[in-house]
Amino acid sequence: MNDFDRTIEDELTAIINQEERLFIGDAVPEEYKYDEYVYNTGNVVAVALPITKKEIVQLVKFANKKNIPIITRGAGTGLSGATAPLGGELIIDVHLMNKITELDEETMTLTVQPGALLGEVHDFVEKRGYFYPPDPGSKNSSIGGNVATNAGGMRAVKYGVTRDYVRELEIILADGREVTVGSLNIKSSSGYDLKDLFIGSEGTLGIVTQIKLRLLPFPKAKLSAIAAFDTLEDATEAVLTILRNGVDPTAMEFFEREAIALSEKENKLLFPSQAGTAYLLITLDGDSNESIEQRMKLLEKSILEHNSIELLPLINPSQEYTSWFLRDQLLTSVVSYSEQVTMDEVVPINHISTLYKYTKVLEKESGLKLISFGHAGDGNLHTCITRGDIADQKLWEEKRDHVLAKLYDKIHELGGLPSAEHGIGIIKKPYFNKMTADINLELMRNIKAAFDPNNLLNPHKVL
Amino acid sequence: MNDFDRTIEDELTAIINQEERLFIGDAVPEEYKYDEYVYNTGNVVAVALPITKKEIVQLVKFANKKNIPIITRGAGTGLSGATAPLGGELIIDVHLMNKITELDEETMTLTVQPGALLGEVHDFVEKRGYFYPPDPGSKNSSIGGNVATNAGGMRAVKYGVTRDYVRELEIILADGREVTVGSLNIKSSSGYDLKDLFIGSEGTLGIVTQIKLRLLPFPKAKLSAIAAFDTLEDATEAVLTILRNGVDPTAMEFFEREAIALSEKENKLLFPSQAGTAYLLITLDGDSNESIEQRMKLLEKSILEHNSIELLPLINPSQEYTSWFLRDQLLTSVVSYSEQVTMDEVVPINHISTLYKYTKVLEKESGLKLISFGHAGDGNLHTCITRGDIADQKLWEEKRDHVLAKLYDKIHELGGLPSAEHGIGIIKKPYFNKMTADINLELMRNIKAAFDPNNLLNPHKVL
Repeated sequence: MNDFDRTIEDELTAIINQEERLFIGDAVPEEYKYDEYVYNTGNVVAVALPITKKEIVQLVKFANKKNIPIITRGAGTGLSGATAPLGGELIIDVHLMNKITELDEETMTLTVQPGALLGEVHDFVEKRGYFYPPDPGSKNSSIGGNVATNAGGMRAVKYGVTRDYVRELEIILADGREVTVGSLNIKSSSGYDLKDLFIGSEGTLGIVTQIKLRLLPFPKAKLSAIAAFDTLEDATEAVLTILRNGVDPTAMEFFEREAIALSEKENKLLFPSQAGTAYLLITLDGDSNESIEQRMKLLEKSILEHNSIELLPLINPSQEYTSWFLRDQLLTSVVSYSEQVTMDEVVPINHISTLYKYTKVLEKESGLKLISFGHAGDGNLHTCITRGDIADQKLWEEKRDHVLAKLYDKIHELGGLPSAEHGIGIIKKPYFNKMTADINLELMRNIKAAFDPNNLLNPHKVL
Repeated sequence: MNDFDRTIEDELTAIINQEERLFIGDAVPEEYKYDEYVYNTGNVVAVALPITKKEIVQLVKFANKKNIPIITRGAGTGLSGATAPLGGELIIDVHLMNKITELDEETMTLTVQPGALLGEVHDFVEKRGYFYPPDPGSKNSSIGGNVATNAGGMRAVKYGVTRDYVRELEIILADGREVTVGSLNIKSSSGYDLKDLFIGSEGTLGIVTQIKLRLLPFPKAKLSAIAAFDTLEDATEAVLTILRNGVDPTAMEFFEREAIALSEKENKLLFPSQAGTAYLLITLDGDSNESIEQRMKLLEKSILEHNSIELLPLINPSQEYTSWFLRDQLLTSVVSYSEQVTMDEVVPINHISTLYKYTKVLEKESGLKLISFGHAGDGNLHTCITRGDIADQKLWEEKRDHVLAKLYDKIHELGGLPSAEHGIGIIKKPYFNKMTADINLELMRNIKAAFDPNNLLNPHKVL
C-alpha cells in the first residue's frame, strides 16, 4: 500500500468507521462492477455505504480533496450503465438509506430516503389507501434511481412519470453543499425550475438524500382487458383511436404472440387470449365501476374500428394476475431465450406503428430476431435484438451494431429519442450524441459545468 | 439625433421595414411602459414587432452588437412587472406572431405562435372536441406569457399548470442561436430537462418563438356546485377532506361573502347562494354524468364533515355562468372598490387555513382591509391589500409595506412561495430574494450566466 492509498484508507475510515460499510481497493465486491446490463472492469477506489446525510457530505468533500470522481448507486438495477464504474471512482452506495420517513396525509406526500425500493413504497402507501402511480417494471429499483432516470413504467399513459410525482428533493451538490429544490407547494412561478433539472440527470448534477413524493387517493375501481388483433398494424393503430376517444387507459401494453409465447414457455402459464398475433393489454381505473363499464364500451368501439378479433375483460383475478405476470416477465423470457440487447426507444405516438414495422424490415435484412414490446400508449417500445444461434462473436457484434445504428437513425427521423425511461448512461451515449442537436448538448454541458465545475459527479456518463 | 441613435434607427429599420411595426425613442407608445400592474417611467430605446422568427434573430443579434438589453412582451397582461421597462431596453413585442399553426390530432398537440391568446386557443380546440386545461383568469393573456410565468389558473387542482401542457418550445437564445427543447415524445430519459428550465423563466433565458401544446379529449360531463359555510375555517378545512376523499375537483375556488358582495355590487348580479360567510365554488368533470353524481355525493359527505350549511349544484346554466362570472370579476371588483396590491402567494394546502386566518390578524393590526380569494385546492391565495379611505400617501405605503413584509414572512414560515402563477418580475424580487435560500439563488444565477453571459435578456428581473 502506497502513501496515497494509505491516506485514502485513513480518511475514508474516519468518515465510515464500520467495516461492513466500507470497501477499499481489492476488497470491493464484484457486484459493484456492473448494473443489470453493463459489466465494466474498471477498478473503483472504494465503495462507501453511508447511512446519514452527514456521511455523504464528508464523502463528497473527501472526493473533492482527492479529486476522485463519484458514482452514486442505489439498488443497482440500472439498464444503461449509469452506475457502472469506468475506473478510479468512489462509489457512494445509498441503499442502506432506505427508510420511508413520513406519510403526511394532509399534503398527501411521502418522505423517503433514496434507497427505499419502489415495491416497498407501493406496498406502504396502498395499505393506507394511497396511490403512487409510477410503475417501472423493476419493483426492486430504488426511488433514488427512479428519480435519477425519470423512470416511467406501465401507468405513464394516464398518470405520467416519476417527474410528475416528485415534490421536493434534498441534494448534496458536487462541492458538498446542501440544497433543497422543489417544495410542498403545488404551484410555483418563483424562479427557475431547479427540481426538474436534477430529475433524470443520472447522478451527474448532485446526490439525492431525501425525496418527497406526491400521492393520489387509491382508485376505487380497476379492470384490465386484453384486446387481440390479427395484425400488429391493427393493434398499434388502435392505440391512437383509444387515446382520442377518451378511454383514458391507465396502462396500454403492446406485444406480439411470439413474444408472449416466450413468456408462456418460460413461466409455464397460458396467456388468457390465444387468438390473433398481436395484443393490447389495457387497464382502466376510475372512481366507480360504472365509469369503467362506460369506458370499456368506448374501448370496444375503438378497437372494433381496427378489426379487433377479441376483447377479453379480465374479471377473473387469476386471469388478470397471469396476464400481467406474463407481461412483466417478457424481458426476462427474452433474456432466457437468447443473448440480446434491449432498447428503450420512444417516438411520438403516431409513429409507433411505423417504427414497429421498421423493426420487421431490419429483422429480414439482418437475419436477427427482433422482439419488441412496450408501453404503446406512450410511444415507448422496448426492442430486444437477439443473438439467436449466431456462434461467431464478431459476426453477432457487427449485425447487432448495424441494427442498432439503423434503428436509432429511424427513431431520430421519426422525431423520437434514444431513451424513454432507462437513461443514457454509457451504453446509449454515442446514439444520444448523434441524435441530439449540438446546441442542446452545449446547453447541457454548460449546466453540468455550472453545477459541477470539476466534473466529479458521474463523469463521462450521459454527456 | 446623435450618431448612436442614427445607427440604431438605421439598423432597426433594416430589420423591420414597416413603420407600424417599429417605434424608436420618443415615438414609443405609452402602453409599453407598463403591464397590468406596474408602471415604469424607464425610456426604452425602441419597440419592434416582429412577424417572423428571422426578424427576432436579427433583433437579438442587433441588441448583442449594441449591448442593448431585451424585454420580450406578449399581450402585456402581466401582473409582476416582468415586461415593464427599467430604461434603455429594446422591447420585442411578439403579439403579432399570434397564429394557431397546426392541430395534430394524432399526437393531440396544438402548435401556436407565442402571441396567440389563451382564449383563442380554448375556443379553437374546444370547437374541435379537445381540451387545453390551463385556465388562468386573463383569457387575453398570450400563450407565450403563460409559458414565461408557468401560469396556473382555475383548473390546476386536477389538471396541473402550463408546464404540464408544453410539449416543445422553439427558442431564440441570448446570442441569437435557435434551439428546440422538449419534443412530441411523451416520455424522456434522454439528457437534462432543458424545456422545464425555460418554462417560468420570465424571458430571462430565451425568446420563445413557437410552442407545441398538449391537448386532452374534452371531458364528456361537467357540473359546478357552491358549498356555503358559516365560517372561513370550515370552508378552508373542508378543502383537505374533499381532496383526500377522491372527489377529484377540476376547480375549487374559495372566497368570502364580503368579497363576492363587492363583485355582486360591481356587476349588479346576485351570487346563487346567499347563505353563510364563506364559499367553495367547485367544478367536477368526468367521463359520464354517473361519475359526477357519484363524486357529488362524496363532495356532500366531505363538506358535511365541516358543517357546510348549503350545497347548491349549479344545474341551471345561467346560475353556473353567473357564479363563475362573479368569481372571475373578483379582482376587478376589488380594484374598483379601492386602490390595492394583489398578491399571488402559495402555501402547502394544509396551511391555507392558517394563512387565511393570519390575514385577518394583519387586518386588525393594520386597519387595512385584506380581501383574499383563490385557488383553494392548490394552496394558492390572492390576497388584496386595499387602501380604503386612507388619504395620506406615505401612511398608506407604510401600512401596505408593513403588511406585505409580515405576510411574506408568514408565507415563508409556512413553507410557501411568493408567486404561484404570476411570476416574480420586479415587484416580488425583494421578497423572493429573502424567501429563497442563498444556494438556490446562486444555482439560478449560475444558470442565467451560462445561458446569457452578457445579461441581455430581461436583466434585473426575477434574479
